Amino acid sequence: MLCRMPPQEGPLGRLRRGHEELVLDLLRRHGRLSRGELGRHSGLSRTTLYDIVATLVHDGAIVVSAPAPALRRRGRPVETLTLNPHAGQAIGIDFARRAVHVAAVNVAHEVIGSASEPHDAGLGWQERVDIADRLVGKLAEGALRLGALNAIGVGVVGPVADGGGTGSEPASRTGTGSSQGADGDTARRLRHSDEPLALLRARFDVPVLLDNNTRLAALAEATWGAAAGDQDVLYLRLSHGVGGGLVVGGSLHRGAWGLSGELGHIRVEPAGRRCSCGATGCLETVASVGAVLDAHRAAGGEAGQLPAFLARVEAGDPAALGVLEAVGTRIGSVLAAVCNAVGPGVIVLGGELTQAGAALFEPVERALGADVVPLARHRVDLRKAALNEAGGALGAIALVLHESPLLSRYPARPDAARPARSASTSTADASPDSEETP
Amino acid sequence: MLCRMPPQEGPLGRLRRGHEELVLDLLRRHGRLSRGELGRHSGLSRTTLYDIVATLVHDGAIVVSAPAPALRRRGRPVETLTLNPHAGQAIGIDFARRAVHVAAVNVAHEVIGSASEPHDAGLGWQERVDIADRLVGKLAEGALRLGALNAIGVGVVGPVADGGGTGSEPASRTGTGSSQGADGDTARRLRHSDEPLALLRARFDVPVLLDNNTRLAALAEATWGAAAGDQDVLYLRLSHGVGGGLVVGGSLHRGAWGLSGELGHIRVEPAGRRCSCGATGCLETVASVGAVLDAHRAAGGEAGQLPAFLARVEAGDPAALGVLEAVGTRIGSVLAAVCNAVGPGVIVLGGELTQAGAALFEPVERALGADVVPLARHRVDLRKAALNEAGGALGAIALVLHESPLLSRYPARPDAARPARSASTSTADASPDSEETP
Repeated sequence: MLCRMPPQEGPLGRLRRGHEELVLDLLRRHGRLSRGELGRHSGLSRTTLYDIVATLVHDGAIVVSAPAPALRRRGRPVETLTLNPHAGQAIGIDFARRAVHVAAVNVAHEVIGSASEPHDAGLGWQERVDIADRLVGKLAEGALRLGALNAIGVGVVGPVADGGGTGSEPASRTGTGSSQGADGDTARRLRHSDEPLALLRARFDVPVLLDNNTRLAALAEATWGAAAGDQDVLYLRLSHGVGGGLVVGGSLHRGAWGLSGELGHIRVEPAGRRCSCGATGCLETVASVGAVLDAHRAAGGEAGQLPAFLARVEAGDPAALGVLEAVGTRIGSVLAAVCNAVGPGVIVLGGELTQAGAALFEPVERALGADVVPLARHRVDLRKAALNEAGGALGAIALVLHESPLLSRYPARPDAARPARSASTSTADASPDSEETP
Repeated sequence: MLCRMPPQEGPLGRLRRGHEELVLDLLRRHGRLSRGELGRHSGLSRTTLYDIVATLVHDGAIVVSAPAPALRRRGRPVETLTLNPHAGQAIGIDFARRAVHVAAVNVAHEVIGSASEPHDAGLGWQERVDIADRLVGKLAEGALRLGALNAIGVGVVGPVADGGGTGSEPASRTGTGSSQGADGDTARRLRHSDEPLALLRARFDVPVLLDNNTRLAALAEATWGAAAGDQDVLYLRLSHGVGGGLVVGGSLHRGAWGLSGELGHIRVEPAGRRCSCGATGCLETVASVGAVLDAHRAAGGEAGQLPAFLARVEAGDPAALGVLEAVGTRIGSVLAAVCNAVGPGVIVLGGELTQAGAALFEPVERALGADVVPLARHRVDLRKAALNEAGGALGAIALVLHESPLLSRYPARPDAARPARSASTSTADASPDSEETP
C-alpha cells in the first residue's frame, strides 16, 4: 500500500508540487541543465531549488551526472541534471469479461508493448491478477522497468463509482455527502472494484487507478485512436453489451456518481424487451450483438453467430441489411440526443458490430444528421474505433497519464504541457481506512 | 480594445503567471506580508520576486503600504504588501430577448448588486449596450469600482461558438481546423455575438467573455443557486423556448463547437410539430410555454396566457393537470436519456413553466426515475432553479471568475483555491484581426 502522492495536501504541498513540476518541465524542454542554469530559468531561490532537486533525485525522477572531462573548467566539476529516462512508465490492465489485456508506455508516452490472455468468464480475481502479473512480467523482460515512478491503470467491467479505486472523495466530487440516497446494494455494486484494487496494490506496490473499461476505451480513442487529439469525444461500444464514454475537454468524464456513459441504457422502446439492467427497451436490447442476431432470425435470417451474420451483410442479404438499417437508425437517434446535450466534435463507434461497416454506419449517420440540432449537422464527425480490444488497457494508461501528478510530470505532446484539467482530483492513493468509505 | 492576458503565451508566460498567482495566493491567505516574508513563503529568488511584485502593483492587483510608525525599527521602514481591496470586481450582463439584466460581485465573490430594465424585442445592439451602461453606472454609484482588474461577462440568446467572444482558438479547442464542414450561414450565425462584444469592449475598455445565457444560468445555479457547490449539474430551462446547460466538474461545458446544452432540440416526436430550429418534434415543440398553452387549448381548456393557465393548475383543473402530466413525462424521459450519458448529481429545472410546481415536477420525477439507469435512480436530485431572471447575469460573472486568470487570482472559497480547470482556455482577448476568424 504505497501512498506516494500528494506528499502534503495543503497550500504548501501544492506550492511544492508546483516547484517540482516547474523543474521537471524545464529539464524536459532543455534536456540537461546545471543547478545554476535551473535557478536562472526557474526563478527559484538557491535553497528552494536544492531542496526540490534533492527530493526529485531521491524519488528517481531525475538523475545527476558529472560533465565529460573535456568540458570541465577550473574547480569542482559542474554536475548536470536530466530526467531519468527509466522513470515515468505506466502499465494499463483491462480485466475484460473473458480476457486480461495489458499494455505499457514509456516516458515519452509511446506504447512499448501489449499482451493478452483469454480465460473463462467466471474466473476469480486472484487468478485474473495472476494472469495480469504474468503478462506484465512478459513485458518487463522487454523494455519495461518497474521503478519508483510507475503507476498502474486498471479497467473493469461494470459501473465504477467516483472514478474508481481511490475511494477517498465521493463527497468532495459531488458536494452532497457520501450516503445520500444510496441504498446498500447500490453502494456495494459500486464498490465491487475493491477486490482487484487491493490485490493489485499488494502485488505491484504502486499507485493504482481504476475505471470502467468502456469509458477507458473512450479515453484511449481520444488519446491514441480514432479521435486522437480531439477534446470532446462521444464513444459508443456495440458489443455483447452496449456502453459508452465521454471525453470532455480532453479528460475522461465520470459524472457525479461515476455513472456516466451509460448509453446502452437509454430507453428507445418503452414497451420493448427486458434489459440486463432491469429496465425495458434500453438501446442495448436492440443494438447489442445478441439483439441484432435475434432480429435477423426474427426477420427470417438463418440462426448463427456474428461471423455468419457479417458474411450475410457482406453478401448483400436484404434481411441482414434491413436489420442493420433499423438498428443503425435507433443508434443514430440516441447519438443525436446525446450530441444535442453534450456537443462532441467526434463520435467514435466501437465493438464487434462495427465490423458490419457501411451497412451499419450509413443508417447511423443518416439518423444522426436528421435528429441533431441543425447547426451541429456538419460539425460532428462519425468515426470507427481504431484500437479494438487493446482500447481498455490503453485507456487505463491514459487515465494514469492524465490523473497521476507523478506521471503527468512528463508530458510528451505539446498540448500535454498545459496543466492537466483533472490533475488535482482522484489521485490520492486510498489508505486502508478510506477504502471502506463508499 | 484591451488585451490584458495572457502577457506571454509560451512556457515563460505560464511560468510567470504561476509566480504571480503564487504571490497573490500567499497575500490572500496571510493578509499582509513584507517582501522578505513573501520571499521566504514563496521560495522565489529576490530578483524574481521584486519583478513579480512590481508588475502586480503596476496592474493594481496589490498595494504597498508603509508600516505604522510604532512598528518601525531601525533603518528604512519595511513596506508591506496586501491585495488591492478594490480590485477583482466583476460585472455580468445578460442581454435577454426583452430585457437587460446586470449584476456585480466583489473581490470576495459576493453579489453586491443587480439591476434590470425591460425593452422591446427588436431593440438594436447599440441601444441595448446603452441600457447596460446605464445599469452598470447605477451599480457603480454604489459599491462598484471599475478598476484595472475588472472584467465583464456577457450572456446572449442563441448559440455561441467556442465559448464566445474570444473568437481566437476554435481550432485549438476542437483540433479539427476552423472551417471543417462549416457552411457560411452556420459560421455567421455562430458569430452573431461579435457586435455586442465589440460595443462592450469599446464602452468599458475591459476584457469581455461571452456565452449563451441559458448555459450561463446553468453555471449560476451551480455557483450561487439551487446546485451551489455541485460539480456535475444538468440544467433545463422551460420558457418561451426550451434550452439547457451542463456544468461538468464545476466548469461550464461548451462542447466542441459551443453547441452543447441544446436539450430543447432533442427529438421526442418524429412526426411532431415544426420547431424554430427547422427540425420537427423537438422537445421545445411540446415543452415550451407556448406549446403547453396550445396543448391546453387543444384539450378543451380556455385560451389564455401563462398566468391564467397556472391559475387553472392551482385550481386543480383536470385538463391543465393532464397537459402537465404529459409534458412532464416527456421532459423526464429526455432528462433520463441525458442523465444516462452524462451522470449529473443534480438536475435543475428553471423557466416560467416551473411555476406550475408539483403538477409539473411530479411527472418529471416519475419519468426520470423510470427511465434512468437503475443504479442512478436514487442518486440524481431534481431541484427547482433558485435564481430566476438574474441567472444569466450571475452566470456571466461566474464565467469571468472561472475563466479569467486575472480574477481567478482572488479565489474566495476554499475549493476555488485549486487551479481552475478551464483557466487556460478562452481567456485571450481577441484582437481586431482575430475577431474575423470563425
